[in-house]
Amino acid sequence: MKKVAVIMGSDSDWGVVKNAVATLKQYDVPCEVHVMSAHRTPEAAHAFAASARENGFGVIIAAAGMAAHLAGVLAAATTLPVIGIPIRSAGLGGLDALLATVQMPSGIPVATVAVDGAANAAFLAIQMLALSDDTLAEKLAAKKKEMAEGVAKKDQKIQEEAAAL
Amino acid sequence: MKKVAVIMGSDSDWGVVKNAVATLKQYDVPCEVHVMSAHRTPEAAHAFAASARENGFGVIIAAAGMAAHLAGVLAAATTLPVIGIPIRSAGLGGLDALLATVQMPSGIPVATVAVDGAANAAFLAIQMLALSDDTLAEKLAAKKKEMAEGVAKKDQKIQEEAAAL
Amino acid sequence: MKKVAVIMGSDSDWGVVKNAVATLKQYDVPCEVHVMSAHRTPEAAHAFAASARENGFGVIIAAAGMAAHLAGVLAAATTLPVIGIPIRSAGLGGLDALLATVQMPSGIPVATVAVDGAANAAFLAIQMLALSDDTLAEKLAAKKKEMAEGVAKKDQKIQEEAAAL
Amino acid sequence: MKKVAVIMGSDSDWGVVKNAVATLKQYDVPCEVHVMSAHRTPEAAHAFAASARENGFGVIIAAAGMAAHLAGVLAAATTLPVIGIPIRSAGLGGLDALLATVQMPSGIPVATVAVDGAANAAFLAIQMLALSDDTLAEKLAAKKKEMAEGVAKKDQKIQEEAAAL
Amino acid sequence: MKKVAVIMGSDSDWGVVKNAVATLKQYDVPCEVHVMSAHRTPEAAHAFAASARENGFGVIIAAAGMAAHLAGVLAAATTLPVIGIPIRSAGLGGLDALLATVQMPSGIPVATVAVDGAANAAFLAIQMLALSDDTLAEKLAAKKKEMAEGVAKKDQKIQEEAAAL
Amino acid sequence: MKKVAVIMGSDSDWGVVKNAVATLKQYDVPCEVHVMSAHRTPEAAHAFAASARENGFGVIIAAAGMAAHLAGVLAAATTLPVIGIPIRSAGLGGLDALLATVQMPSGIPVATVAVDGAANAAFLAIQMLALSDDTLAEKLAAKKKEMAEGVAKKDQKIQEEAAAL
Amino acid sequence: MKKVAVIMGSDSDWGVVKNAVATLKQYDVPCEVHVMSAHRTPEAAHAFAASARENGFGVIIAAAGMAAHLAGVLAAATTLPVIGIPIRSAGLGGLDALLATVQMPSGIPVATVAVDGAANAAFLAIQMLALSDDTLAEKLAAKKKEMAEGVAKKDQKIQEEAAAL
Amino acid sequence: MKKVAVIMGSDSDWGVVKNAVATLKQYDVPCEVHVMSAHRTPEAAHAFAASARENGFGVIIAAAGMAAHLAGVLAAATTLPVIGIPIRSAGLGGLDALLATVQMPSGIPVATVAVDGAANAAFLAIQMLALSDDTLAEKLAAKKKEMAEGVAKKDQKIQEEAAAL
Repeated sequence: MKKVAVIMGSDSDWGVVKNAVATLKQYDVPCEVHVMSAHRTPEAAHAFAASARENGFGVIIAAAGMAAHLAGVLAAATTLPVIGIPIRSAGLGGLDALLATVQMPSGIPVATVAVDGAANAAFLAIQMLALSDDTLAEKLAAKKKEMAEGVAKKDQKIQEEAAAL
Repeated sequence: MKKVAVIMGSDSDWGVVKNAVATLKQYDVPCEVHVMSAHRTPEAAHAFAASARENGFGVIIAAAGMAAHLAGVLAAATTLPVIGIPIRSAGLGGLDALLATVQMPSGIPVATVAVDGAANAAFLAIQMLALSDDTLAEKLAAKKKEMAEGVAKKDQKIQEEAAAL
Repeated sequence: MKKVAVIMGSDSDWGVVKNAVATLKQYDVPCEVHVMSAHRTPEAAHAFAASARENGFGVIIAAAGMAAHLAGVLAAATTLPVIGIPIRSAGLGGLDALLATVQMPSGIPVATVAVDGAANAAFLAIQMLALSDDTLAEKLAAKKKEMAEGVAKKDQKIQEEAAAL
Repeated sequence: MKKVAVIMGSDSDWGVVKNAVATLKQYDVPCEVHVMSAHRTPEAAHAFAASARENGFGVIIAAAGMAAHLAGVLAAATTLPVIGIPIRSAGLGGLDALLATVQMPSGIPVATVAVDGAANAAFLAIQMLALSDDTLAEKLAAKKKEMAEGVAKKDQKIQEEAAAL
Repeated sequence: MKKVAVIMGSDSDWGVVKNAVATLKQYDVPCEVHVMSAHRTPEAAHAFAASARENGFGVIIAAAGMAAHLAGVLAAATTLPVIGIPIRSAGLGGLDALLATVQMPSGIPVATVAVDGAANAAFLAIQMLALSDDTLAEKLAAKKKEMAEGVAKKDQKIQEEAAAL
Repeated sequence: MKKVAVIMGSDSDWGVVKNAVATLKQYDVPCEVHVMSAHRTPEAAHAFAASARENGFGVIIAAAGMAAHLAGVLAAATTLPVIGIPIRSAGLGGLDALLATVQMPSGIPVATVAVDGAANAAFLAIQMLALSDDTLAEKLAAKKKEMAEGVAKKDQKIQEEAAAL
Repeated sequence: MKKVAVIMGSDSDWGVVKNAVATLKQYDVPCEVHVMSAHRTPEAAHAFAASARENGFGVIIAAAGMAAHLAGVLAAATTLPVIGIPIRSAGLGGLDALLATVQMPSGIPVATVAVDGAANAAFLAIQMLALSDDTLAEKLAAKKKEMAEGVAKKDQKIQEEAAAL
Repeated sequence: MKKVAVIMGSDSDWGVVKNAVATLKQYDVPCEVHVMSAHRTPEAAHAFAASARENGFGVIIAAAGMAAHLAGVLAAATTLPVIGIPIRSAGLGGLDALLATVQMPSGIPVATVAVDGAANAAFLAIQMLALSDDTLAEKLAAKKKEMAEGVAKKDQKIQEEAAAL
């Protein structure tokens, strides 16, 4: 199976990003995790993305906050799909990172998920890999069922809480 | 090759969305184009997405404006990757559609591109299909070169305009 | 009397939503409370709304955060009035949920109240039911008086605090 | 049948608001249309709302722009449901009117629709009246079908345009 | 001297508003403090403002949060200058109250100060009264000097902290 | 009667600002109109404001766009009330000018009106002068009546248009 | 004298950016103008910035719209000061480009000017070069005078227009 | 070496601003630190900036919150480059200070850094001084290396944390 690269711009993003890594592991999707910076290690980031396909990667997930350029910088250097996680920071609430991640120019898309949406970045990567991996597709279908059952249980619980109000 | 579904919430989105279709055609990626509405034909939309994988689709692109629910409604019904194009409308400038598309809950990602970013939605879909299609991957690599050469030509042109200032 | 359905997208919304339920109970308006998700249990949500009228419901209240599609998804499946409560979440402060709830396309309105405005959702539902229920209308008129008296008491209290400054 | 009052803060809102009136007429819902201002004729507005129930009104629709207080001022004076239409103006794109309409304090809800969403205000009013009017409810159900068929036709049309691309 | 009315929409605003009252007292400007609500006691608010001039008031200060209509409702009923204090609340950070206070239609201005800017509301009221009160004008001039001296002292203190860094 | 100074940061603001001057003239309030810039003629602006009181001015109106510092710079140099008109410009729709005008620090208020709200700036100035000028107060009261009558006329007109729909 | 590099992300930015070039030419500051893209020619952009100092450049000006990464990408590769011009585009009004340009992480500043503020980018570059160039500093001082005189002339003109109102 | 002036509008900004001072000291760049207010000590601020060049300053850094005029007021009085740090405050999250700092009119630029971006303001000042100081330029180049190595170390650490997940 192709690997997923999970790159974050700063180790301070790890608290959010680890949800992506944990999700990938749950689905037995091999991943490599790195701290790389669009601004502090631009050449390393560029080189990583430029050789990612030949190094066995299928998808790159990139998380960054503020003027979040990391996903865009990686997308510029590869033809692999790049998923961007805008990281929330104080003050502007992640709107800066969201706009800096999603508003990419024509030809260089970044598949953007919600602010701090690390788990969804992983699910999106798994969906991409599942295009040619039926086992993974079945796991995702099972997950959908499981989520529905989880909602049903919570429905039950809240009905009881409401009755007790 | 798996097909790409291009769904728009209203035929008034066609002016923007046709850039996605044109791009897919340029890369010889088979696609089906539909108008479907999360709110006016919810069952049709649900049914389409629920059977998309077995009907030979690999990726779904969904474009909608305002309280843009279409991509999310489709994503809820499939394990295929769903790409969302937020459509700009008067007043709030597309911020409403962007937030309604990208801020999805855990487990149901929508790969969001820029406001009115239809061409990029197509490129993202092609990148996903290229994960298991080397010819497509090569075309994307060629496109990257071509874009770079385009910039170089424009650089030349602007240098002349600047000299003439 | 017709029932009010109070649906929330996640059990984490209960802390806000219970204000709606408590208000309905205060007015002896029968209600059913559910957790249902536009994205995790779309068919259940659709089915519930589609049969809500014949099941004795008069109004549906739906609360959701982020890309808040729940109210819209329910409104798509019923001709009953649907009231949307945008739930605040970290980062974007509920602006995402507000826009995703209120900016509905023509033909499928969602009656939107303030961010986290659960009590007002209930009052709005009661106002709708009171259109054909004079007792309820009188209770609402009494509530208006009571609110005015409450303000008068607070006016007294603050005058004293101001005098002591 | 109870009447719907359609109130606008300025005659310059008529271009938008007439969509509400036209929709009500299409459904044979009797309505009265007025220009009244929360700031220029506050007493008239208050008096209108305070006697609206006894004057045979069932719902009040209020449209206003900028610091849009009209819906709130009417809601303060009645126990009828009040629907607010935020009107877009230059500069802030209607965000001012949206927030001034929707963010009402507890006990005085305004059922807010989209910026410039006049037709939806009418549909919402009709849904409320249809709670005790089965003919109206059937018309709304018919409208839902008609909208779905409209989408199906547009789907056909766009498929042809896409094929011709 | 004419009195200043300080009106707040809810007693929960008192923590902010008392800065206005304290400032007025510091300048020996007589004031009356009230809780009045544009939505819960609209008639009392209207009556208060309508008779404020003849009751010896010169300026009205009004503080409210969310869809902050109080200042506008008072301004509608008087020809006295009305100063609006937008109160910050969770979620939208006071942007809702700011826009609902400042974006008034032609003919009915509200003199808006910063979000939670209660002290400045008082200073603005004092400036207005000082137009025909030289003693007050001198006190304001003295305050300007005092503020400048305060800055000079802080400048000294920070220079020391900077030297110690 | 004290004079009103109407200052604008750029002659390009005149199209908006002349509504303030026209309003003042309508009420026979003497005014002086100037272009002065917080950034290009800071000393002139400072000097003007510092001597405004002794030069017979009662109120200063200042209009500026973008990082609108003019009103604040004038307010810093006088104890007269300063009214700020945020001027709309392309791109950010006047939000920049609004925030730069209204968010003043404690002790230096700027009485802010709506974006491009020049007429209201004049009305606010007239209200201030009317505190010690009964004739002016009566004119303002007459204006209130006139506005109410204007609304009544428009009400009539719109009722006819609605009937003809 | 050191040269100024003026880089734009797209030739469509030229209409705005030429104001920077024209300003530099007015001050006889040598400049080189290029189209380079953070996403389409990342290596060229990186290489240009990395060798800019040794190639005789003193300042780099970078203009880009949407997810405006160009200034940040250049700043990552040089220790020269980089000035960013956020370019306005439809929809989000340049807020996306502003946040993507200004919100840089620690250690890699971008000196950001106003949305579409190309002339100011040039003035800022000239101010930097004038730190070690007294002639340039004198020209800037002369410009300040000239601007003040320009305001004085406009003041005269507007006074006449105001008198004629 | 020319000195850097670090000016803040209030001593409450010191917690943020000291990062600028600490950074300058680390690079042995002489600096003077002051509290000065655009609104409380406008003349002192003007005088300081007007004589800054002749007093041996090369760059001015100015930090202010809310309607942040300080940087603009200083820039109006000097031809030295002025760097603005928008300070975050409650409510609007620093968006007010950012827009009030960056949106300067033509001819008077303020080099704006991120909200609370004090360290970057210092780095930007050092970059400007390094234009004619090779030692400083070398230190900045060394810092770039050091930052890259810091990222590499964090990369290692996070890889271990990811492996342990």
